Amino acid sequence: MARPVTLFTGQWADLPLEELAEKAGAWGFDGLELACWGDHFEVDRALSEPDYIEEKRELLDRRGLVCFAVGAHLVGQAVCDPIDERHRAILPPDVWGDGEPEGVRRRAAERMKDTARAAAALGVTQVNGFTGSAIWHLLYSFPPNDFDEIERGFEDFAERWDPIVDVFDTEGVRFGLEVHPTEIAYDFVTTRRTLDAIDNRPGFGINLDPSHFAHQSLDAAAFALEFADRIYHVHVKDSRKRLDGRRSILGSHLDFGQEARGWDFVSPGHGDVDFESFVRALNRIGYRGPLSIEWEDSGMDREWGARDAVAYVRAIDFEPSAVAFDAAMQRSE
Amino acid sequence: MARPVTLFTGQWADLPLEELAEKAGAWGFDGLELACWGDHFEVDRALSEPDYIEEKRELLDRRGLVCFAVGAHLVGQAVCDPIDERHRAILPPDVWGDGEPEGVRRRAAERMKDTARAAAALGVTQVNGFTGSAIWHLLYSFPPNDFDEIERGFEDFAERWDPIVDVFDTEGVRFGLEVHPTEIAYDFVTTRRTLDAIDNRPGFGINLDPSHFAHQSLDAAAFALEFADRIYHVHVKDSRKRLDGRRSILGSHLDFGQEARGWDFVSPGHGDVDFESFVRALNRIGYRGPLSIEWEDSGMDREWGARDAVAYVRAIDFEPSAVAFDAAMQRSE
Amino acid sequence: MARPVTLFTGQWADLPLEELAEKAGAWGFDGLELACWGDHFEVDRALSEPDYIEEKRELLDRRGLVCFAVGAHLVGQAVCDPIDERHRAILPPDVWGDGEPEGVRRRAAERMKDTARAAAALGVTQVNGFTGSAIWHLLYSFPPNDFDEIERGFEDFAERWDPIVDVFDTEGVRFGLEVHPTEIAYDFVTTRRTLDAIDNRPGFGINLDPSHFAHQSLDAAAFALEFADRIYHVHVKDSRKRLDGRRSILGSHLDFGQEARGWDFVSPGHGDVDFESFVRALNRIGYRGPLSIEWEDSGMDREWGARDAVAYVRAIDFEPSAVAFDAAMQRSE
Amino acid sequence: MARPVTLFTGQWADLPLEELAEKAGAWGFDGLELACWGDHFEVDRALSEPDYIEEKRELLDRRGLVCFAVGAHLVGQAVCDPIDERHRAILPPDVWGDGEPEGVRRRAAERMKDTARAAAALGVTQVNGFTGSAIWHLLYSFPPNDFDEIERGFEDFAERWDPIVDVFDTEGVRFGLEVHPTEIAYDFVTTRRTLDAIDNRPGFGINLDPSHFAHQSLDAAAFALEFADRIYHVHVKDSRKRLDGRRSILGSHLDFGQEARGWDFVSPGHGDVDFESFVRALNRIGYRGPLSIEWEDSGMDREWGARDAVAYVRAIDFEPSAVAFDAAMQRSE
Amino acid sequence: MARPVTLFTGQWADLPLEELAEKAGAWGFDGLELACWGDHFEVDRALSEPDYIEEKRELLDRRGLVCFAVGAHLVGQAVCDPIDERHRAILPPDVWGDGEPEGVRRRAAERMKDTARAAAALGVTQVNGFTGSAIWHLLYSFPPNDFDEIERGFEDFAERWDPIVDVFDTEGVRFGLEVHPTEIAYDFVTTRRTLDAIDNRPGFGINLDPSHFAHQSLDAAAFALEFADRIYHVHVKDSRKRLDGRRSILGSHLDFGQEARGWDFVSPGHGDVDFESFVRALNRIGYRGPLSIEWEDSGMDREWGARDAVAYVRAIDFEPSAVAFDAAMQRSE
Amino acid sequence: MARPVTLFTGQWADLPLEELAEKAGAWGFDGLELACWGDHFEVDRALSEPDYIEEKRELLDRRGLVCFAVGAHLVGQAVCDPIDERHRAILPPDVWGDGEPEGVRRRAAERMKDTARAAAALGVTQVNGFTGSAIWHLLYSFPPNDFDEIERGFEDFAERWDPIVDVFDTEGVRFGLEVHPTEIAYDFVTTRRTLDAIDNRPGFGINLDPSHFAHQSLDAAAFALEFADRIYHVHVKDSRKRLDGRRSILGSHLDFGQEARGWDFVSPGHGDVDFESFVRALNRIGYRGPLSIEWEDSGMDREWGARDAVAYVRAIDFEPSAVAFDAAMQRSE
Repeated sequence: MARPVTLFTGQWADLPLEELAEKAGAWGFDGLELACWGDHFEVDRALSEPDYIEEKRELLDRRGLVCFAVGAHLVGQAVCDPIDERHRAILPPDVWGDGEPEGVRRRAAERMKDTARAAAALGVTQVNGFTGSAIWHLLYSFPPNDFDEIERGFEDFAERWDPIVDVFDTEGVRFGLEVHPTEIAYDFVTTRRTLDAIDNRPGFGINLDPSHFAHQSLDAAAFALEFADRIYHVHVKDSRKRLDGRRSILGSHLDFGQEARGWDFVSPGHGDVDFESFVRALNRIGYRGPLSIEWEDSGMDREWGARDAVAYVRAIDFEPSAVAFDAAMQRSE
Repeated sequence: MARPVTLFTGQWADLPLEELAEKAGAWGFDGLELACWGDHFEVDRALSEPDYIEEKRELLDRRGLVCFAVGAHLVGQAVCDPIDERHRAILPPDVWGDGEPEGVRRRAAERMKDTARAAAALGVTQVNGFTGSAIWHLLYSFPPNDFDEIERGFEDFAERWDPIVDVFDTEGVRFGLEVHPTEIAYDFVTTRRTLDAIDNRPGFGINLDPSHFAHQSLDAAAFALEFADRIYHVHVKDSRKRLDGRRSILGSHLDFGQEARGWDFVSPGHGDVDFESFVRALNRIGYRGPLSIEWEDSGMDREWGARDAVAYVRAIDFEPSAVAFDAAMQRSE
Repeated sequence: MARPVTLFTGQWADLPLEELAEKAGAWGFDGLELACWGDHFEVDRALSEPDYIEEKRELLDRRGLVCFAVGAHLVGQAVCDPIDERHRAILPPDVWGDGEPEGVRRRAAERMKDTARAAAALGVTQVNGFTGSAIWHLLYSFPPNDFDEIERGFEDFAERWDPIVDVFDTEGVRFGLEVHPTEIAYDFVTTRRTLDAIDNRPGFGINLDPSHFAHQSLDAAAFALEFADRIYHVHVKDSRKRLDGRRSILGSHLDFGQEARGWDFVSPGHGDVDFESFVRALNRIGYRGPLSIEWEDSGMDREWGARDAVAYVRAIDFEPSAVAFDAAMQRSE
Repeated sequence: MARPVTLFTGQWADLPLEELAEKAGAWGFDGLELACWGDHFEVDRALSEPDYIEEKRELLDRRGLVCFAVGAHLVGQAVCDPIDERHRAILPPDVWGDGEPEGVRRRAAERMKDTARAAAALGVTQVNGFTGSAIWHLLYSFPPNDFDEIERGFEDFAERWDPIVDVFDTEGVRFGLEVHPTEIAYDFVTTRRTLDAIDNRPGFGINLDPSHFAHQSLDAAAFALEFADRIYHVHVKDSRKRLDGRRSILGSHLDFGQEARGWDFVSPGHGDVDFESFVRALNRIGYRGPLSIEWEDSGMDREWGARDAVAYVRAIDFEPSAVAFDAAMQRSE
Repeated sequence: MARPVTLFTGQWADLPLEELAEKAGAWGFDGLELACWGDHFEVDRALSEPDYIEEKRELLDRRGLVCFAVGAHLVGQAVCDPIDERHRAILPPDVWGDGEPEGVRRRAAERMKDTARAAAALGVTQVNGFTGSAIWHLLYSFPPNDFDEIERGFEDFAERWDPIVDVFDTEGVRFGLEVHPTEIAYDFVTTRRTLDAIDNRPGFGINLDPSHFAHQSLDAAAFALEFADRIYHVHVKDSRKRLDGRRSILGSHLDFGQEARGWDFVSPGHGDVDFESFVRALNRIGYRGPLSIEWEDSGMDREWGARDAVAYVRAIDFEPSAVAFDAAMQRSE
Repeated sequence: MARPVTLFTGQWADLPLEELAEKAGAWGFDGLELACWGDHFEVDRALSEPDYIEEKRELLDRRGLVCFAVGAHLVGQAVCDPIDERHRAILPPDVWGDGEPEGVRRRAAERMKDTARAAAALGVTQVNGFTGSAIWHLLYSFPPNDFDEIERGFEDFAERWDPIVDVFDTEGVRFGLEVHPTEIAYDFVTTRRTLDAIDNRPGFGINLDPSHFAHQSLDAAAFALEFADRIYHVHVKDSRKRLDGRRSILGSHLDFGQEARGWDFVSPGHGDVDFESFVRALNRIGYRGPLSIEWEDSGMDREWGARDAVAYVRAIDFEPSAVAFDAAMQRSE
């Protein structure tokens, strides 16, 4: 049987979960990856209100939807980041607090621990998210970087996330970092350094989203093979380069969806991701979890797109072979 | 006659100018673009010591070298940047001072004005350099940028540089921003915004270096045509992508010269820059100034490279035609 | 809602409209773009026979088909062309008359005015077609062209079409030139010159058919953005290059469908047109009119192809987004 | 009407024909190309057991399946090959006998004659298969080949196959060599030499399988046009290169399905074969026979794949045009 | 020994031959291909003035230059062309006469016969040139071509050139058509038809200029192999595509050298021609004649370019091998 | 200082060494890699004739040539190969003997030991060569390979070469396998298996020749980095793919130099090898040994080619940097 197809709810948090679940059920999804914002999965309420989790579960059941994973990207981002006004817009008020950076980072770390606890209460063993990064802003080495400071950035990550992963371990939940620019890991090199920094502990793995690889000219299938034992969850999302010598691959400080950008996110199958190779790599490493559509395409109606995406994913997802080929040509004796 | 070929001295500032000039003369350069660091062109001394400028001039004359431009990249960088420890390493101590960011930025701005004055005293009408940027670190819009803040970054640039350019105008010197990641302008889109922000005033133009375009997938020849009337100076430098699906175009927070990087700077002609198109574009826009080699290649001996580069530039540089072709086929009557 | 999908009837004029309409309805088309040849839409009869238009309208209604546009390519071609025997084969006998070139051109111009009148009578506000060109045959400049003569070709176009467009304006109908080799405009440069020649008057716009761009190595999506306010109608058609070093992109004076040609027209989706980019460009410029399939593929059964094409167009056509993305991630306060 | 879609049973010989036929019928195939191994089509029994053929025929009829061709690859391989232990595994015991090479080759040749007789008895006029080759192992000329020996290899082929084809002619059956590495013909050059060696006699033609061309960088559509009058049967199979600078196109002595190989077989539509061009070429040469899916993909579940393949083939197969295009634009007089 | 390198004088006819010869000798050319315009080689004077030829010969001798071929492109163009004002500008007044088309064509044909006679008198056995074409203007088949008319164009060519070639045969001179758009032959298909039309008579061959192939996406090396026995002379010239989705390969009715063109002629080695393959093909077919540089590059100073070109040609021209390789590894016995 | 440039004499063994050395000296080579055939370096005579080695040494000294390595490809080939008539042509008669395969293999192994002894006597510490392979002929797995047999092929190699390498170790000489099709190692995968099979013992390394990688679509620079500590010697040779859809990458059983082959060897710089990357990789791994030109190009005069090659290699070979770049920008305090 093929893999379940789920919808990550993060980009739909303007809709009440009730409404979104009804739509997703009708579009043929097998489940939802609940975002920890909007009213989709509120960690504080999940831990404090007795019926909260049961109500969410029933809401999903009514639509025949399963929850395999929870998405905690926004709070996770604040754990390592230098904090600025942009974080205020994406954090719960009590995590933001007075906005003093180190305080924000610490409260975000605590909230991540709570997220593991809430996920466990919901019966979910996978939490996806971001880590933030103390060194992302040093991306281009001018003025020349002090590369010891880069090294300290990875150490800072490990110091902040190790205690969080302790709680994940206790709860029987695994964290999946969505490897992504602006995070501590965004490519092969930085993923290796990140996993090494945290001693390759099993509680910290990867939510693999190929859309973040294509515009960097990275091969997401090769990445799956390279980090096979840490691929804990998979997002299906796409991106598309539009390089014509006048559009920079760096994005030109333009918002997503602007015509003059060199690349943009698009609905799965409408971009550069080689999903044929990607599915084959997932098969080779034995990944059997959900394919979770993170739908984002600023040039397409999102409901048209969600339906298009679920059909696309079902068309490209196939199971590996259980038979050796030439066997059928050889006589048994 | 072809264009003069000069050497930008910034990457050779570990050598005394006397020694470098001797080498450059022997290698066949027509001149030097003096960097404002090391002992190559010290702005404060040029303005305060009566014989400083005359001694430099004689030093160059002895080697048959001309100075067409001065390079003030390091101080310029501090004018708009958020200041951190990395700037301490590249600034003169009196510009760095106590390191308080706004103070550093103001002292850097004053030093840029002095640079125009010193250049004028040297008889040079072109100063190249960087501007820094208050918003470079917001390159990837996550957490989602407030795009008003991006706009304010361009305004901040204009506020800080307008008074500097006033002094340039007074001195009859033009500034050439080296369009470059980490600066306020690094591609077509941001260059347009930058020039607009400063009202396209003629005192502020471009030092065009194609090596910063190639790894962004930008066409430096098209850029020359697009911003033809602001191309005041040209660097010859090259860069080379090494994308194999495992190396990110973003650089992986690795230092230049590291094997796992997705691109790197290389000696001219050893990389991706299409110099054929570039020279044709320079001819089309009527650029007759120097081709200034900014030599940087962490995988090549620099003296071998400097000789290789000057030979390369002379081989690819040609003059435009003065004749209409088919004319020769048509009889005059 | 997606755009209506229509069938341009020009390549089916060997079938009576009655028969074609029945087929097109069954294949799932939303409407027909009636060609002004065969019995599909006869301009002279439409203006002279009292019931003609009503009968056509009823014929379409019976099949649930709408007419958004009329195609007047053949007569339009004769307005500017040097006239030769080939025109006799494509013109109504009374337009051809005695075949004296200037007479033919003038009668063709008059017939175009009548076409606007007939379209208006049918309730249709869009007429598509060709213009012909006095200078197309000077495509390759040998013997060397007198470029004043080229300029005069654009002026000749404007002189002949300005009075035609006057009638279009009066009737409330717009003309859409199908940008196409052999016409006064066939690429970016000549379209700009053409629109300028006719003072960019709104009555004269473009019927954009991407198949004529692909073999010229032109980007039809970029064209849509460049001439956004003149894209009045869209044809869906495809072409395919087959360059192997032995087939010329120029066509070798071979008929369409010959194996040795370097390119050929093919059914939509079977060729080089990047319809993903094309649809995104149409969305960006706000085009909401019909996607009119001009079906032409000399290697495919046309009825199989028409069905394949309508399914293809419905699969690739999508609406733009009405939502800003990251909005869902930001809390309202 | 489109071409029939059949399934070559060779890779399914671990299943009894009864079971496979039931599945193939359910998946929507029009027929089966019976392999001469497993219990699918046993040549010796077909000629010796009175009811054998009738029972096979009825078995197929019950599922609505037609047999257009028989596949005799394994025995054919032994006709020209240097014989080694690998042949023992693929030959019927009585053909292998004592394994003495020349004896094996002669018995294989006799069995091929019987295959023609059995096919005729079944009412089938096409037998596909391999020829083997005395010279395949001399592929790379080091130590330097004696090219007279290469020539003798083609003569050896002709000497061994001429008498076989005599029987084919007598029975009214044609042989189709599947052009393939390890066979006497595997590309354009060797196919030309092979057909010449056997005097281009009509009884010896080609079973064209494009999957063997793609990894050699060969154009299977061009091959169809080049050898148009010898294309007797067509396999639909695909292959996919995965060249990243570390995987050799030569296969690295690794089994199919190994990650480190430079290419592999894949389900139709999942690889490099340009089926658009391929179908157009088949149309151009007038091929109207079956499209026989030889399904082989070591990374995909074969039942999922068989269904995917039959849908794919039906989607890409179309008939040529019977109409000349511009005809519809020209008035009849 | 390598091939002689000559300069075609056609684009330098604004200079007196005396002056050009001095330059060409100084630049290192081995000879000149004299154009039949300017004062370079005037056919009428060569046949009527007793000392004319001897003076030319001496002029060349003084500079150590040899004449291997004469270029008669302009008059040749008028033999088959529909005549218009453009021809007046390129024809000698007595060939143009009153400009009545058929009269011009006939006088041009006579002048071509005289050109053979004059060449023979000069001791030169190769005349290169154009043929013109009655059908070039029908390049794109709209309005739909009558393909019988295309066929008649090739017949017209043969009728006009057969008597010319008779004179060439008599004089022991061969004609080399420069295969080129606007001529009767411009690619593989039309060259085959042209040679067939004139019964492949040996007096009519090809002056192969690869610059006319590159922009058509044609492989000039493959052309040399295909028409090996008719390659009588070779031009070295280059062209360069600049396709960016906005520039048409068709040239946009723009003059050579305009920025917005999709391709242009450039100095040898500065464009798309694959000279490595080209030289190998010339070696394979045994061509030992001159490599005649036809220098044309509207973006480069022509004297800089001529020197650059002669150095380039000497660097890429090499002789074929006379030794079989592995021979050296095999012991003689 | 750059690396020494030597000439491998294997392809020149038809010339006496005396004559070749004179030529090579005149062409500017720094040394010769002596082939163990012809009269260049005869192992048996070197060990048995008292003055042989001294005479060779003097012969080289007279021309200013150094010998850094000896090439023993032909005898090495016979150590593991299945022996056939082709080996007779390349082996010394006493190694071939009666041609009984196992006897030939054993005598070849003994001769390789002697080669180490002779090299040591000459003062050379590097012997390059081939190994042969018991399994090369099983390249394409049909009939399906028994992959245990493939494994046994690597074991056979190790059993035969281990005792040879023992002698090399004793003599202080290293063996460099030229990774090459037909050898036990020809790509990344098989090189890894080969080195593992022989326990990665230091006496057995690689003579890296990039020409054997390019046609396999392998990246020779990546190979150098991957097997950095076993790159003992480097050949400079090139190969060139000529794939046009009709030429197979497998070579078509055609001799080198045949037009219809899909690839061929060519003089360095005339083919597909990316020498820029190659030199950078050699610099990165610290290779300081000779660049030994193995000249082979069946389409070029070899003496022209040898001169061209030595100039090419000197132009592309450069030393790594000893300076860290941005250092020059940072002030010392």
